[in-house]
Amino acid sequence: MLIAVDAAGGENAPREIVKGAIKAAQDYGVDIALVGNKAVLHVLAGRDIKKLNLKIFEAKDIIAPNEHPMRAVKTKPNSSIVIGTNLVRDGVASAFVSAGNTGAVVCSGLLSLGRVKGIERPALGSFLDITPSTPTLLIDAVANADCRPSHLLQFANLGSTYVKHLLDIEEPRVRLLNTGEEEGKGNRLMQESYDLLKRSGLNFIGNIEGQDISNRTADVIVTDGFTGNIVLKTIEGIGDSFINSLRQVGRVFSTAYHLRGRDLLKDLGLGSWAKKMDYREYGGACLVGINGNIIVAHGRSQAKAIRNAIGLAKQTVDRDICRIIREGNHDKTNSSD
Amino acid sequence: MLIAVDAAGGENAPREIVKGAIKAAQDYGVDIALVGNKAVLHVLAGRDIKKLNLKIFEAKDIIAPNEHPMRAVKTKPNSSIVIGTNLVRDGVASAFVSAGNTGAVVCSGLLSLGRVKGIERPALGSFLDITPSTPTLLIDAVANADCRPSHLLQFANLGSTYVKHLLDIEEPRVRLLNTGEEEGKGNRLMQESYDLLKRSGLNFIGNIEGQDISNRTADVIVTDGFTGNIVLKTIEGIGDSFINSLRQVGRVFSTAYHLRGRDLLKDLGLGSWAKKMDYREYGGACLVGINGNIIVAHGRSQAKAIRNAIGLAKQTVDRDICRIIREGNHDKTNSSD
Repeated sequence: MLIAVDAAGGENAPREIVKGAIKAAQDYGVDIALVGNKAVLHVLAGRDIKKLNLKIFEAKDIIAPNEHPMRAVKTKPNSSIVIGTNLVRDGVASAFVSAGNTGAVVCSGLLSLGRVKGIERPALGSFLDITPSTPTLLIDAVANADCRPSHLLQFANLGSTYVKHLLDIEEPRVRLLNTGEEEGKGNRLMQESYDLLKRSGLNFIGNIEGQDISNRTADVIVTDGFTGNIVLKTIEGIGDSFINSLRQVGRVFSTAYHLRGRDLLKDLGLGSWAKKMDYREYGGACLVGINGNIIVAHGRSQAKAIRNAIGLAKQTVDRDICRIIREGNHDKTNSSD
Repeated sequence: MLIAVDAAGGENAPREIVKGAIKAAQDYGVDIALVGNKAVLHVLAGRDIKKLNLKIFEAKDIIAPNEHPMRAVKTKPNSSIVIGTNLVRDGVASAFVSAGNTGAVVCSGLLSLGRVKGIERPALGSFLDITPSTPTLLIDAVANADCRPSHLLQFANLGSTYVKHLLDIEEPRVRLLNTGEEEGKGNRLMQESYDLLKRSGLNFIGNIEGQDISNRTADVIVTDGFTGNIVLKTIEGIGDSFINSLRQVGRVFSTAYHLRGRDLLKDLGLGSWAKKMDYREYGGACLVGINGNIIVAHGRSQAKAIRNAIGLAKQTVDRDICRIIREGNHDKTNSSD
């Protein structure tokens, strides 16, 4: 299995990307194709290229984080993002992982791979891994347009299928992110989406409120991309505040108790919590509903997050989820026609 | 100054409400009118009634947290919420504080006190007090209907005026909660609201993303009630997880370091952070844009949050913000006509 990795995307590219990719090759035994500046990648990957049989694809262009996604994708065919998605389209790579401009990755995925038949809009499913135990999938987090209830129904179907086959959950519990638990709550979009979800045949168990997101009472949380994006980033920001507090505490603590040099967060059992809140450690989000495997990593990803995102890509390929979605949706499209 | 307090609303009513009201009477020197079951309140308040000159108003009915707001307000004229808002309408009380059914408080405030001329929809402004330094106002968090761009412009005006006069900030920095910093980001509502805000004459300094909510780069964060409600509750949920983790840590820590019996969170300097994240400590949110002062406290409020909410009510009355909004808006309505 060859996984293409955007070595030019993200705040910590290319160094952390290369580090994470090498770690993934070692840990998961996958073949890696690095996409970026060939000369630089040769220096960074060094003798690991031969040892791990890394492939390197030259990408002369970079799409910056703030570039207009569609325009950038159309005018930069030699960017790492476009080349990476094309490797998937051409069957060279089984998946593409990028921490670059999310909008551009989505656009490039759409243009190059196309939507699954019957899907109006692909969705970004992000795993929330705040508490221990299995994570919850928040879908959608692509934030560029208004949603209709039919989109949310499709997000629910996509998310449910993804989680079912990735995590072996027989009937994923689907909830709708809303302002109250009762039916009839929320804005018009959510009220109408609730009605559709109730009749969907999915294991839809009602609304979920913001305070319960981390309570593990849902396997899939469905929302529109605007709300999803804001909620994800809010969690991110609070996580940052939390981690900063913990670091301060570490210093205060070592001074007060003369324990300098110990890993206090670890001693305190807070290390894993801090890590879970730190999106630099996240595994990435999957773009579902297109004909190919694309994993979007956080722009601030460091080596470990890239390694984890490649792990998620491998699992997504292993479980053949893209084919399952395509066939499942094809059946549904036919039978409902 | 007499402040009416809903002694029947919220998860911890009436005991914690009475405790908080007594504390507020002592700390702020305000007169308190408790609204609820007279017999019970006499038992709970005991000799403080005489000592602090507490007033008690009988309310035979209670509006439950999940009752349909408008229906409940219309069919329960003897509920603590309706009686409390009527005390403000009749000039008996200067403000009303309630931890009861938020929707019902908003409806009752609207029906009883009416909207300020020119305001289409009143808004709930909640202070986010996650980090030290002065708090940020998130407006709106009333979650029952779809917003138009003109609503968001009004929320911005209301929030800006409120913060300016409550916190003595000359030109409050207003930002729009959105999915990216650049103009043109977000859904249609946010794109059109951005245009209106740019031309508003307010100190509008652009979009703010979720991860920056706690960064103190805005004095007023404007959003629609749906998004505001979900963001507030998400912060709440993460705060809960955080506090639970800290408690666990406290236990692990005392066992590991043989420090049983010490207030470890306090020792660690995390106590204040935990408190800031704990909405049981919050001071409440102000319903702005109606002809009277209504403070909504969290349904899970304990004594301290009620005390703080009464403090916010006192400050709102002291600063005469309701009149300022009315006159300011009246001027604006006239001049723009």
